[in-house]
Amino acid sequence: MATPSVLTPQSEDFPRWYQDVVAKAELAENGPVRGTMVVRPYGYALWERIQSELDTRIKATGAQNAYFPLFIPESYLAREAEHVEGFSPELAVVTFAGGEELAEPIVVRPTSETIIGECMARWIQSYRDLPLLLNQWANVVRWELRPRLFLRSTEFLWQEGHTAHVNEADARAFAARIHREVYDDFLTNVFATPTYLGIKPPSERFPGAVNSTTAEGVMLDGKALQMVTTHELGQNFARAFGITFQSEAGQAELCYTTSWGATTRLVGGLVMAHGDDAGLIVPPRLAPIQVVVVAVRDEPPLNEAAGEVARALRDAGVRVEVDTSRGSFGRRVTNWELKGVPLRVEVGPRDLAEGRVSLVRRDVSEKTTVAVGAVTRAVLDVLTEVQAHLWRRALAHRDANTHDVTSVADAIDAAKDGVARVAWDLVEGEGERLANAQAVSVRCLQRADGSVPESSDERDLVCLLARAY
Amino acid sequence: MATPSVLTPQSEDFPRWYQDVVAKAELAENGPVRGTMVVRPYGYALWERIQSELDTRIKATGAQNAYFPLFIPESYLAREAEHVEGFSPELAVVTFAGGEELAEPIVVRPTSETIIGECMARWIQSYRDLPLLLNQWANVVRWELRPRLFLRSTEFLWQEGHTAHVNEADARAFAARIHREVYDDFLTNVFATPTYLGIKPPSERFPGAVNSTTAEGVMLDGKALQMVTTHELGQNFARAFGITFQSEAGQAELCYTTSWGATTRLVGGLVMAHGDDAGLIVPPRLAPIQVVVVAVRDEPPLNEAAGEVARALRDAGVRVEVDTSRGSFGRRVTNWELKGVPLRVEVGPRDLAEGRVSLVRRDVSEKTTVAVGAVTRAVLDVLTEVQAHLWRRALAHRDANTHDVTSVADAIDAAKDGVARVAWDLVEGEGERLANAQAVSVRCLQRADGSVPESSDERDLVCLLARAY
Repeated sequence: MATPSVLTPQSEDFPRWYQDVVAKAELAENGPVRGTMVVRPYGYALWERIQSELDTRIKATGAQNAYFPLFIPESYLAREAEHVEGFSPELAVVTFAGGEELAEPIVVRPTSETIIGECMARWIQSYRDLPLLLNQWANVVRWELRPRLFLRSTEFLWQEGHTAHVNEADARAFAARIHREVYDDFLTNVFATPTYLGIKPPSERFPGAVNSTTAEGVMLDGKALQMVTTHELGQNFARAFGITFQSEAGQAELCYTTSWGATTRLVGGLVMAHGDDAGLIVPPRLAPIQVVVVAVRDEPPLNEAAGEVARALRDAGVRVEVDTSRGSFGRRVTNWELKGVPLRVEVGPRDLAEGRVSLVRRDVSEKTTVAVGAVTRAVLDVLTEVQAHLWRRALAHRDANTHDVTSVADAIDAAKDGVARVAWDLVEGEGERLANAQAVSVRCLQRADGSVPESSDERDLVCLLARAY
Repeated sequence: MATPSVLTPQSEDFPRWYQDVVAKAELAENGPVRGTMVVRPYGYALWERIQSELDTRIKATGAQNAYFPLFIPESYLAREAEHVEGFSPELAVVTFAGGEELAEPIVVRPTSETIIGECMARWIQSYRDLPLLLNQWANVVRWELRPRLFLRSTEFLWQEGHTAHVNEADARAFAARIHREVYDDFLTNVFATPTYLGIKPPSERFPGAVNSTTAEGVMLDGKALQMVTTHELGQNFARAFGITFQSEAGQAELCYTTSWGATTRLVGGLVMAHGDDAGLIVPPRLAPIQVVVVAVRDEPPLNEAAGEVARALRDAGVRVEVDTSRGSFGRRVTNWELKGVPLRVEVGPRDLAEGRVSLVRRDVSEKTTVAVGAVTRAVLDVLTEVQAHLWRRALAHRDANTHDVTSVADAIDAAKDGVARVAWDLVEGEGERLANAQAVSVRCLQRADGSVPESSDERDLVCLLARAY
């Protein structure tokens, strides 16, 4: 794939390559208030596809969407001690509204455990009301000192699930189900991004959680990105907000709650998991535009043929766009490559005279021609292969950049440009502090076989260390 | 339809009936910060259906979704004089963030003309970039002194479209297209709510607009509700934010912009346009649950039959739910009536012994039985008839409550419990002030034939006056 001059090469300056892709593929821009983000139509189309895929999976677990207020009384946050300590430095506070100073300051939600906890306390009476399975799609605000588009923005979009259960086992099982059936299924089958599933060390848990599960992706520069998280909140928020129920035995008991989220950060993860020096590469199952049909020149027979190919593809359920625009063919191709459309169908005069069109994959340098009558079948096959290839390539990258080591020093060294795997016993405590001092963090704890432990108290755990976004 | 005791009858106290429906059908609750709203899962499911129907229509016009920041620098609003004057009293202001006092206060968006205007100025270079057609789904905040759930809430959800065009005619034509193909089509064919389409008098225009078009619904108590609006903003925001383009002739020119929106207020309109003393009535094409299949008792053969009927309906594309819950049959029926599910299929032992089930319409007192094998066809037919009937009934209500009068005094009198139609010449100026003093407002201006005028300067206009939500 030829490198267009519009992007800084990855090998030269990865962070700048990322910024270039976000700008040139027209994904997002900085907003006027520090750390805020304007998500441009193509970036938002990617987010809409993520939303749609996650929403279907969330609803399949029985969770229902609802909407809770943006504004939370400041006093709510203070009710859970770790929670307020964790979020206080990041809060945006409304002190003035409707033309006057407010008696009690209002916090712009950084997350909604508190306001939803207060509702749960009113809605839950008896064990018959449980489990209560809620989700909301919303914006949240966490003041960022070092913002980066999609990866760390002061305002971001997300879904946040919040559930209440009769006991710890049910809460844990539901959190695990979300992790498996919603997040891991999406990341594997749509996002084509292998991750390390594990639990966070105590130091990295969500403020107020008793256990946080994560899926850590390994980006192309070897740094880790937390893609999604699921939290067991124990009875912490139930105690703070009085979320109680009458048990079958007639006793008043505290619920166990969970929360779990995925954010617009995933768009940044998409860029850094699959992109190359020509721009973004979007896995076909995620892509808002799976195929672009490009007429090589703006001439009626080519435009007509392009339109016919597109119609046939659309009828077959492919998300397709036609480019019959003027302007140089090369520049148009560069633009579609920047945007990462997985497959390009080129309609040119020489091919067409032979009743054929060309298929050009975005992920590898491969151009084939196919008879017009066979194009739909061929496109469907190629899209399937592109999806599978992106997964295989990302998996190989993850594994090649993961290093088993046997000391903290080696782990810190390996984490300079990859992921280090080492016994948690060696790292816990002083080792973690040493690593953190080098900007390396414990991304997650796993069992030796790579499965997700139930708690950090299990024996013989390994941990994965990396630099992270 | 028997009146359950859970609701205050409409005839006794309409506002309290409304509050009761919103609470008992579990649509929404007040949030802890004054005027904010918790949208409960069933209320949110209604909003998701509204979103889905509007979003499809918006995309069909060529507009693209994007997302702009919640936070706007206070100085932005001041750039358009009427705009800042209109919105200043309603603003919520962040003065403190990230642990410190902010140098410049930040406004929580009340609407996004300013921040989108600033982006448009950067994105538009040439006439080739026009029209620029954007839409966003978002929350906005306008501080409300007398909040009412859905109808007036401090925070509400909406879509706001923002477009830029080369000239006034294009801007006007696009705004008219949105009004017709997005809003009126939705209100007519999905929402089953006839409205009066017209333009706002100058006193009621959106702050900064040169022309505002509205669709005014007539609620069951005779008061009007502005369902949606479309604004021609002329060059006001283009001038304030420097939205210029190079014309084909090579001249720098100011764009003409539009904006248009529909909000969660529509859920309140749904309640007040179709509800009755038993609760909500949702038009089938809107309903998140079109049919509920209720087993009369929790017994295996009834539950199995209910499940089979539901499967057949689902396969036919019907949004269906099965109720095989325990608890009194009467209470379950009351609940489904409260929620306004348009059609109930009852599966009882006597009917089933004869191979039949009962269909019970929500909109009229009508129960018929149908052979199990014919249920899908019958349900589809009844849903079509319910949709048509709700429209006819609402149209008859609107027309019966609209009175042609010939003086301002008669108009104010007629507007006590309905809509008055009178020559605009009679009302403009002093008449409007007199009406406003009686809490009656000019809802819109129309031509004598009911069509939408291009401006309030046209001759021989009529106006519609009413009390309004």
